[in-house]
Amino acid sequence: MEKEIDFERIKELLESKSFGEIKKILVDMNPADISQLFEEISEDECLILFRLLPKELAAESFVYFDSDIQEKLINDFSDKNLREILDELFLDDTVDIIEEMPANVATRILNNCTDPAKRREINEILRYPEDTAGSIMTVEYVRLKKTMTVKEAFDTIRSTGLDKETVYTCYVTDANRHLEGIVSVRTLLLSPYEAKIKDIMETNIIYVTTTEDKEEVAKQFNKYDLLAIPVVDKETRLVGIVTFDDAIDVMEEEVSEDFAKMAAITPPEDSYFKESVFKHAKNRILWLLILMVSSTITGIIITNYQEAFQNVPVLIAFLPMLMDTGGNCGAQSSTMIIRGMALDEIKLKDFFKALFKEMRIGLLISAALIAVNTIRVLIFNYNEFYMSLILGITLFCTVIIAKMLGCCLPMLAKLLKLDPAIMASPLITTIVDCCTVIIYFSVAVAILPIFTNLTF
Amino acid sequence: MEKEIDFERIKELLESKSFGEIKKILVDMNPADISQLFEEISEDECLILFRLLPKELAAESFVYFDSDIQEKLINDFSDKNLREILDELFLDDTVDIIEEMPANVATRILNNCTDPAKRREINEILRYPEDTAGSIMTVEYVRLKKTMTVKEAFDTIRSTGLDKETVYTCYVTDANRHLEGIVSVRTLLLSPYEAKIKDIMETNIIYVTTTEDKEEVAKQFNKYDLLAIPVVDKETRLVGIVTFDDAIDVMEEEVSEDFAKMAAITPPEDSYFKESVFKHAKNRILWLLILMVSSTITGIIITNYQEAFQNVPVLIAFLPMLMDTGGNCGAQSSTMIIRGMALDEIKLKDFFKALFKEMRIGLLISAALIAVNTIRVLIFNYNEFYMSLILGITLFCTVIIAKMLGCCLPMLAKLLKLDPAIMASPLITTIVDCCTVIIYFSVAVAILPIFTNLTF
Repeated sequence: MEKEIDFERIKELLESKSFGEIKKILVDMNPADISQLFEEISEDECLILFRLLPKELAAESFVYFDSDIQEKLINDFSDKNLREILDELFLDDTVDIIEEMPANVATRILNNCTDPAKRREINEILRYPEDTAGSIMTVEYVRLKKTMTVKEAFDTIRSTGLDKETVYTCYVTDANRHLEGIVSVRTLLLSPYEAKIKDIMETNIIYVTTTEDKEEVAKQFNKYDLLAIPVVDKETRLVGIVTFDDAIDVMEEEVSEDFAKMAAITPPEDSYFKESVFKHAKNRILWLLILMVSSTITGIIITNYQEAFQNVPVLIAFLPMLMDTGGNCGAQSSTMIIRGMALDEIKLKDFFKALFKEMRIGLLISAALIAVNTIRVLIFNYNEFYMSLILGITLFCTVIIAKMLGCCLPMLAKLLKLDPAIMASPLITTIVDCCTVIIYFSVAVAILPIFTNLTF
Repeated sequence: MEKEIDFERIKELLESKSFGEIKKILVDMNPADISQLFEEISEDECLILFRLLPKELAAESFVYFDSDIQEKLINDFSDKNLREILDELFLDDTVDIIEEMPANVATRILNNCTDPAKRREINEILRYPEDTAGSIMTVEYVRLKKTMTVKEAFDTIRSTGLDKETVYTCYVTDANRHLEGIVSVRTLLLSPYEAKIKDIMETNIIYVTTTEDKEEVAKQFNKYDLLAIPVVDKETRLVGIVTFDDAIDVMEEEVSEDFAKMAAITPPEDSYFKESVFKHAKNRILWLLILMVSSTITGIIITNYQEAFQNVPVLIAFLPMLMDTGGNCGAQSSTMIIRGMALDEIKLKDFFKALFKEMRIGLLISAALIAVNTIRVLIFNYNEFYMSLILGITLFCTVIIAKMLGCCLPMLAKLLKLDPAIMASPLITTIVDCCTVIIYFSVAVAILPIFTNLTF
């Protein structure tokens, strides 16, 4: 992957203040790599190196920086510096930066947007609720008229394209900005210069509305392999486009959120090291408390069977195995169902199909687990045939119930318009534990009197 | 999102054999939507509808179909039909299809590639090991020479572009196919016709080698916001490109694999409903058995403290709460670390930084859990002050150990070149359970004699 960048060499040059040397290395670097370098050096060094970058590369790199470094740099900029950077930025990137800044810095950025039209557009995007298509779109795109020829279209792209984030898909609108068609640069390149846009444009358009959930927008990109998707208002007037790089960011974000929720964590707002210890603890404590208090129910149930395990203490020895196995079985099913629903492989209408499938998987798995467990119990606890019977029945019921719950609960959450990801391992483990303990001790007190002289 | 497609209406039309009507609807549909429709109708109906599609749309939709439907259709095609479809397909899509087909169908596809050069290229890509950049690349791209002018470049794109999957990035090579630069269509559009390619091309190129892991390739796309990435051989000769749609597929696949591994499942090869019940059970049983057998260690440890819980049965009542809380704490930390490493936010060299962070989070969390638990125990088990002491000490140790293990084990896995995702909730729960039980009963037998007349 490209020529290896020697960060250590740059750090040495920084120590010896060989800025001329550093500049030579920097100008050949990619913005994403410059951002990576900036994360490894001190903030003061960032300020120095940033001044070494040529204007265009400085602006391109600025977008990739961490918001901390961006804030530090903005505070260090003169208004003139700031305006120079802002002029080079795409509109949606500017909006992203403003959203991360404290109020005073955000105001300063807006005040330094010299173009009133641009300032108005930024303010409009900032007004869209978070998580909507409107909040991640850009209003910079190439707009064509259907009466244009291919030649005129190219002239339009040439004259306006430098400022537009995606020039590869052009949007055809009428006088009222109603979206009439799209035409790709590829189609333009392959059409004769005198062809009319209206004859070559695609009218079967995939679009989203400004209020669409951004997760849905990302799904459209994936489904249709898009480079950009047009965003329209309620009257189907074109107001912006979302580009594929932003869609990929949304996909990553949603996956991280799912991972967090499935581990009983409130999704963090920042990267691991940037989120404070206190915030991390806050994100994790709520579910831990809920689950801790819930699991005392299992404890209360156990207390009811005190007599049984005081007389047959070996019953307790198998409790961790049964609880762990039940929890793992439930976690497996819920993870498969949650991921399947996220990928639209499993829909709500497939409920009974999925449930039937999990039930059959449960049957196969419980058969295997019972076989291995029985052999083990007969070898190591050879005098306790009744234990393998109790464990066998309990394993069977636990596995089936765990698989069923793991299938039902995420789908129930979806039906209730909750995020299925909350119905993952931790919550299901707690519920399955409760069922496991009830089944185990009920079976035990029913079977023990048959094989021993105990009565309950 | 685009005009709603009425699948029910099409199904009704299918029943009444109104093929003329259906054809009118189909020609306006998007390939991805046609594929969705085909999944909801019978295979015989697929064969009928496919014949109604215009040739180009048929080929475009074919790529989106499920491999089952593709196989059924290929078996139904005459050799002439098959050749017509193959002629319209991009090379990397053809390779994807061949990889999913049984041997006899794959051979038939290759035999019907009329162009020997194309057949040779397909065979070459098929030889790259799975999971490498070579296996997902296409050899169709626009190649320019650095002595060309912009005008000549456009002529080259026009004459060859129709067959090339991505025309938006063009690759500049020398006579030996060594990659010398890249130039985007955007740059071409914004340059004067007489400019030379060598003056406008980008020479600071991000590329991968054919043997690079495809997950790494996808990461490059994300880091640098690329549309396509060039793939070179060991002598840095350009052999192909990977396009962003394939990179997105790889990202999704990797995420699904991580989800599966983190739930103790061998990643399935197919979508949820396509994978058979037997395969699902097989994917899940191995880890269940390993974990089931491991958790008996916890059981053996408990047996050693038989005397304690026979005398103080309430000890057992808190066991589920302690085990669940420990497991959840470990799962939270390991999930955060695993995801952080997948996103490159956490690197191996950050080991002590992460460990220190998890320790501090553990301190805060254990304080909160102990506070709530003590209040609860004092209210409901008011006569057992010593229980709240035993539980407090155990919770403190368990939470800290769980957070530490959740941090260390995934990083250890990475160090050993294993996938960190296997060190997730199920395995960590089992290990933490074991620690919890040891701590709990050790603390109990140390403290109980002080407050009661029991000795152990």
